[in-house]
Amino acid sequence: MNEDFMLEAIHEAEIALLLKEVPVGAVVVKGNTVIARAHNLRETLNDPTAHAEMLAIRKAAAFLQSWRLNECSMYVTLEPCPMCAGAILQSRISNLYIGTFDPTAGACGSVINILQSDSLNHWTRIHWNYNNKCSNMLSNFFKNRR
Amino acid sequence: MNEDFMLEAIHEAEIALLLKEVPVGAVVVKGNTVIARAHNLRETLNDPTAHAEMLAIRKAAAFLQSWRLNECSMYVTLEPCPMCAGAILQSRISNLYIGTFDPTAGACGSVINILQSDSLNHWTRIHWNYNNKCSNMLSNFFKNRR
Repeated sequence: MNEDFMLEAIHEAEIALLLKEVPVGAVVVKGNTVIARAHNLRETLNDPTAHAEMLAIRKAAAFLQSWRLNECSMYVTLEPCPMCAGAILQSRISNLYIGTFDPTAGACGSVINILQSDSLNHWTRIHWNYNNKCSNMLSNFFKNRR
Repeated sequence: MNEDFMLEAIHEAEIALLLKEVPVGAVVVKGNTVIARAHNLRETLNDPTAHAEMLAIRKAAAFLQSWRLNECSMYVTLEPCPMCAGAILQSRISNLYIGTFDPTAGACGSVINILQSDSLNHWTRIHWNYNNKCSNMLSNFFKNRR
């Protein structure tokens, strides 16, 4: 765990906030280098798959010219949904660092657990790395939207 | 259910086969019209998210200029994995027609069920629409690869 990488993911979430997107950010790290960074762009792109994690995975795979990200880690500000947890599984990311949990749709333990299911492949270790900024950004966003 | 739409999804899977990709195809239908069609391109694009369903959803959303596909149906030759079932959930597709089940990674009932979980949103009705072509293409593909 490297706190700087979570801060980079938080920075991505802040960009999403400026765009009035749900503030979630993610980075993919290989060795000690961020090779991809992305923020949620669902509304901006009108793309239901344009969550931060998905975009970061696609960028990392394009950079490495390989769909296998097994030597990579992801830092993400919010617990991934089933789609994103499924993409993390598909890409074989080794380590996932999560900034806050999602009690409504989290697929890394909160609602279901796709990454550590006995019946599916296991590639990814989950690390909970709580950071108040991650949860505060989200609660303020939804409070202001009401 | 319209058999022609499953045949269009099968045609997409056949294109994947020509590209030496795992033969899976999907189409998205609105009203009585195919608005998006796609086949698995994971190896070709080096993109772990480039499953047929994901690409078809992204094309359909781009066509409609909306991430909400709630008036759409998807026809897919193979039971979606967790990532794709999660994307179907995210896009709120109404009806999903599946050509054959996936006992190793199917997320619509075979291994887990993301689309009909008590704890997640429900948007999609699952229709099993077995077609021998869907399963035969896949078993021949994996037999030839051994």
